[in-house]
Amino acid sequence: MLDALFKPRSVAIVGASNNPLSIGHIVMQNLLDHGFQGPIYPINPKSKFIKSFRAYTSVTEIPDEVDLVNISIKNTLVPYVLEDCGKKGVKFAIVHTAGFKEVGEEGLQLERQIVEIAHKYGMRIYGPNSQGIQNSDPAISVYANFTFVPMSPGNISIVAQSGGVGETLKLHLYRIGKGIRMYASFGNEADVSMNEIIDYYGQDEETKVIMAHIETMKDPAGFLDVASRVTRKKPILALKTGRTSEGTKAVASHTGSLIEQETIADVIFKKSGVLRFHSQEDMIDAAIAFSNQPVPKGDRVVIVTNTGGPAIIAVDECINAGLKLAKLSPKTVTTLKKLVFQEAIVSNPVDVVATAGPEQYGGTVEALLKDPNIDSLLLVFVTAPFVDCEGIARKLGELGRTSQKPVVCQVMTIEKWAEVIRLIRKGNIPVYDFAETAARALSAMTEYGKFIQRKEPVYKKYKVEKKKAAELFGKQRGKDKFLPQDVVFEVLRRYGIPTVPTVKVKKEDQLEKAAEKIGYPLVLKVDSEKIIHKTEAGGVVLGLNEKNELLAAFKKMARKFDRYKPGYILQKHMAEGKEVIMGAKANPGLQPTIMFGLGGVFVEVLKDVQFRLAPLSEEDVVEMVQSIKGYPLLQGARGEKAVDVDKLVEILIRLSQLASDFPEISEMDLNPIFALEKGKGAVVVDARLRIIR
Amino acid sequence: MLDALFKPRSVAIVGASNNPLSIGHIVMQNLLDHGFQGPIYPINPKSKFIKSFRAYTSVTEIPDEVDLVNISIKNTLVPYVLEDCGKKGVKFAIVHTAGFKEVGEEGLQLERQIVEIAHKYGMRIYGPNSQGIQNSDPAISVYANFTFVPMSPGNISIVAQSGGVGETLKLHLYRIGKGIRMYASFGNEADVSMNEIIDYYGQDEETKVIMAHIETMKDPAGFLDVASRVTRKKPILALKTGRTSEGTKAVASHTGSLIEQETIADVIFKKSGVLRFHSQEDMIDAAIAFSNQPVPKGDRVVIVTNTGGPAIIAVDECINAGLKLAKLSPKTVTTLKKLVFQEAIVSNPVDVVATAGPEQYGGTVEALLKDPNIDSLLLVFVTAPFVDCEGIARKLGELGRTSQKPVVCQVMTIEKWAEVIRLIRKGNIPVYDFAETAARALSAMTEYGKFIQRKEPVYKKYKVEKKKAAELFGKQRGKDKFLPQDVVFEVLRRYGIPTVPTVKVKKEDQLEKAAEKIGYPLVLKVDSEKIIHKTEAGGVVLGLNEKNELLAAFKKMARKFDRYKPGYILQKHMAEGKEVIMGAKANPGLQPTIMFGLGGVFVEVLKDVQFRLAPLSEEDVVEMVQSIKGYPLLQGARGEKAVDVDKLVEILIRLSQLASDFPEISEMDLNPIFALEKGKGAVVVDARLRIIR
Repeated sequence: MLDALFKPRSVAIVGASNNPLSIGHIVMQNLLDHGFQGPIYPINPKSKFIKSFRAYTSVTEIPDEVDLVNISIKNTLVPYVLEDCGKKGVKFAIVHTAGFKEVGEEGLQLERQIVEIAHKYGMRIYGPNSQGIQNSDPAISVYANFTFVPMSPGNISIVAQSGGVGETLKLHLYRIGKGIRMYASFGNEADVSMNEIIDYYGQDEETKVIMAHIETMKDPAGFLDVASRVTRKKPILALKTGRTSEGTKAVASHTGSLIEQETIADVIFKKSGVLRFHSQEDMIDAAIAFSNQPVPKGDRVVIVTNTGGPAIIAVDECINAGLKLAKLSPKTVTTLKKLVFQEAIVSNPVDVVATAGPEQYGGTVEALLKDPNIDSLLLVFVTAPFVDCEGIARKLGELGRTSQKPVVCQVMTIEKWAEVIRLIRKGNIPVYDFAETAARALSAMTEYGKFIQRKEPVYKKYKVEKKKAAELFGKQRGKDKFLPQDVVFEVLRRYGIPTVPTVKVKKEDQLEKAAEKIGYPLVLKVDSEKIIHKTEAGGVVLGLNEKNELLAAFKKMARKFDRYKPGYILQKHMAEGKEVIMGAKANPGLQPTIMFGLGGVFVEVLKDVQFRLAPLSEEDVVEMVQSIKGYPLLQGARGEKAVDVDKLVEILIRLSQLASDFPEISEMDLNPIFALEKGKGAVVVDARLRIIR
Repeated sequence: MLDALFKPRSVAIVGASNNPLSIGHIVMQNLLDHGFQGPIYPINPKSKFIKSFRAYTSVTEIPDEVDLVNISIKNTLVPYVLEDCGKKGVKFAIVHTAGFKEVGEEGLQLERQIVEIAHKYGMRIYGPNSQGIQNSDPAISVYANFTFVPMSPGNISIVAQSGGVGETLKLHLYRIGKGIRMYASFGNEADVSMNEIIDYYGQDEETKVIMAHIETMKDPAGFLDVASRVTRKKPILALKTGRTSEGTKAVASHTGSLIEQETIADVIFKKSGVLRFHSQEDMIDAAIAFSNQPVPKGDRVVIVTNTGGPAIIAVDECINAGLKLAKLSPKTVTTLKKLVFQEAIVSNPVDVVATAGPEQYGGTVEALLKDPNIDSLLLVFVTAPFVDCEGIARKLGELGRTSQKPVVCQVMTIEKWAEVIRLIRKGNIPVYDFAETAARALSAMTEYGKFIQRKEPVYKKYKVEKKKAAELFGKQRGKDKFLPQDVVFEVLRRYGIPTVPTVKVKKEDQLEKAAEKIGYPLVLKVDSEKIIHKTEAGGVVLGLNEKNELLAAFKKMARKFDRYKPGYILQKHMAEGKEVIMGAKANPGLQPTIMFGLGGVFVEVLKDVQFRLAPLSEEDVVEMVQSIKGYPLLQGARGEKAVDVDKLVEILIRLSQLASDFPEISEMDLNPIFALEKGKGAVVVDARLRIIR
């Protein structure tokens, strides 16, 4: 519960000073400038007064209760102050001071020490090396932060790992006259965590949208849990930076944190419905739309314009962002044709032409809002000097206020029509400078709409022989090892994952019986830890069609490899299907990541693979399989037959079940799997599985 | 020569009126508001005075010379006015009036008529359906345009097919206080063309950057020619809209133009060094950088910041945009370590930390500007309240003014530090709101730098038997036909493009001799127009290793296809190489487009192909081949051997030479080509070639 942090009844400032360049001074000034609704207690052992306030030499001297303390004194002094705070019964300490974990081992020790002191007294630490918090709620109005962007009330809450990024986000909202709800840049996250803050924002009725900037996830499992709950109620927009390996290195040198796996963040966002952005501007522009507009019910957008060119840009951008151009209903077409000028184009985009007045432009939007074939509207509006632009804006504003569909707008105008922008915004319609921006914001809203409208996922559990699989793993005690292929195959079979018929043989006289069991054609493979690249070494012979061929191949191989004392594997030679690969990878504290892709060059050269976090619903898996670029190949591109995609989906769910059931599986690759033609299934041809215990 | 258009000594306005909502009034007001430096003559047969000007009933009544006339009367009256203008000796007529080509056949006739009238008198038409022109040169200051964005002098010139897009571009520059040089939105392009305008901007000394918005290229060859000349002197930034098929359709319904091939625009941009953008904002942001900054000599960027997070965003974005993080020279590292605070990070990004003052931040930039390992600088600067921010800005401004390397900057600040932005901009350093924007602008400059620094392309001409090829084509008179494969192969061989040994046979008794000539192993194929899908029909047999196999295969095939009276083809069965494909396609009025890609799924499913416009230099071709996503496969990914890329490059140049030599080749596909291992060449296995005459 972070109430005493974000809604403190009183604030003390350790390090408050009359030096206007000090953090303590700036925080105090920010609290005063924004009319903090509770008492402020400056702490300074040297000055009797700070500004016009009586200063205290220590927190313990304050005669009243203190919820929150801001600390900006030298790092080595922080523990002493915290002892005082603890004794005083302070609930939260925002430590602005740097010089902790981010500077190395010594700092890390100091950081651990201050958390220990705090917890001893039931106090919480926010930071250290943190910027602070803000809450614009007029009943509180707390700006316990040393930055400079003025605060005004709004419904977007921000949590930012980087203060600089947080500041940029606030700044842009401020520039267009939009307020924020709450703000937090939490620094080293020694105690109060990003996840707690997001959870808190999620519970805050007045927060309609959350923007998060993330460099490293300290507790990915916690994030998944919190985000999954919050996104059902309100959108979380995330910017995860350090995407490139160069960026990741820069993060490491900046925060001292471990290098984060980009993939983990991505699968967590996908799983929890967090909307990921790759630029600050895109995220802010989407947040602005979310903060005012209803979420679209579907992906069918209509574009209305009074100038042609920008509408084409809007079309390009909507299509690229995955939206569809709505087809106007016949009724709408009839209505519009009566309404607009003859030169107008009644299609999508609807071009009402520059001479359209309030009746034409407004009437068009009104008709489109009623069209059941339309989910969202993107308006392009240039203030043509020869029409009643304010009249149009007034009408749009009116329509916006009651609209059940999202409406976004590009307006091209200058100061003298400032009223136009004001009137449109008054109707809750976000106004952007560029059609591209409006289109991208709409697409983010559509994506979120799809997420919240999807059915609650059902995680199918196949009936499997978990106990038998556990026994198989049990026999492989030891640590960090790859299991023998026959064991892996048996595990897979226990989980209902088909494997190619395989028999292990040691000697020539076992061949015939084994061959009979499997049936021709066969593949013969040498099996020895000493022979790594089997194919290159001549340790694989394919297409053995009868006994004599098999014996000849065996003899040749035996001569070649005898000195290694190898085993041999006899496998059914499969009518070759389409090669796909699947995999699983354990994530400490989290469910495993499941991988799917087309085999061969697709995975190795084109990196055409998809990752998702277990557990996987059937819907998840279908979406995952369809997301690979090579998907048309599975559907039967180039005149080939379609493969059994349903079976692949089933195997992925079973694989996910297996990986989830046994956290000791650190990695698993089914590679290749031959996907046979539709109705004929798929079969694992080779597999590796490593366990750690 | 467009001087009388962009630098008119006098302007007449046909349709000038006292109705403030009329185009004529608005244009006149714009001319007056911006202090046009010549006489203005309103033409209106009904009003004696327009504003305080004496109105004329006709252009012919004007007692002085008239360079430019703006026309905004009813479309059907335009021809009559133009006759008057012609008689008067007017040089340019800007026709704002709509209702021409864009409304259909009748309008098109009217459009042709007005051009004819104009040309009869040696007059030029600008438009119709056009917005107008602007020139901010203080000696002229002409705003012969009915839009509303105020004009001020600058060095960016804009040409926009869509007036709405043009307006958006002007607007954004205006908002950040940047002027423009010239502006043109040319409407239907019935006479004065986009290409002429770009050419004119290219010759204008004061224009440093050109921004172009294009929906359809009326004259692609002309564009290529003009753009290629202009880009050697100054950058052309282009936004080609209608990128998606939906967007293209919207263009068609908006302009009435034919659907443009997206690929053509793209290859022309590549060939001529035009920088292509996909959003208005990105283009404007790059233009701002180009307008002030030198072009970088290379791609090594250094990032300097006083706040960590945004620098990481800058790193991500620079890397994604293809830049490299510079490695600071040891000397610079030594200098910086002495200069900056202990907490600072001397690496790349250089984090001088928030407490850095003018000495630390400014000194760091100064040192980096001198480092020979660095080509460009991206600065991130938050106005920390506790340092002398104006001092830093002043220092950066000073360094910017003399810098030989481009410097771009993200500044995070509010009004109270407005002076900071002013001081930095005074040093010609562009200031952006987001690190992403700064990074993308820098990347565009780097791309242009690479273009202007590249060697003048050498178009190698191989010695080929052009005459023999011409004779072969000559024998194939008729129109629009695919040539027989043996003819195509011979043409290829005449151009030094290796083809797989192939002999045509008719009867069984020719087989043996043919086989001897080629040598085993062989492929036998049926050859008949009636059998389209040879493989499926059983008309292809591979891997024939000796005479008996060949005869048996022939007999079987003959039995099957006898009724079609087919021919047969005997080919060398190639040791299978990596399949690649090449192609050429004629472009009326332009050199052909050359295509390269990996065969099979790569072309058909992944569309992993590259297009370039002939002629091709060796450098072009190498870049083209390396641009396919599957390129690592040619280099020998996955433990395979590298293929003979040099030979592929040679074949592409020869193919380009062949396609250029014979414009009657409407299309040509070499598919597949087997690329053999390094040093062993490549060979065309099948080819199609269509000629039109």
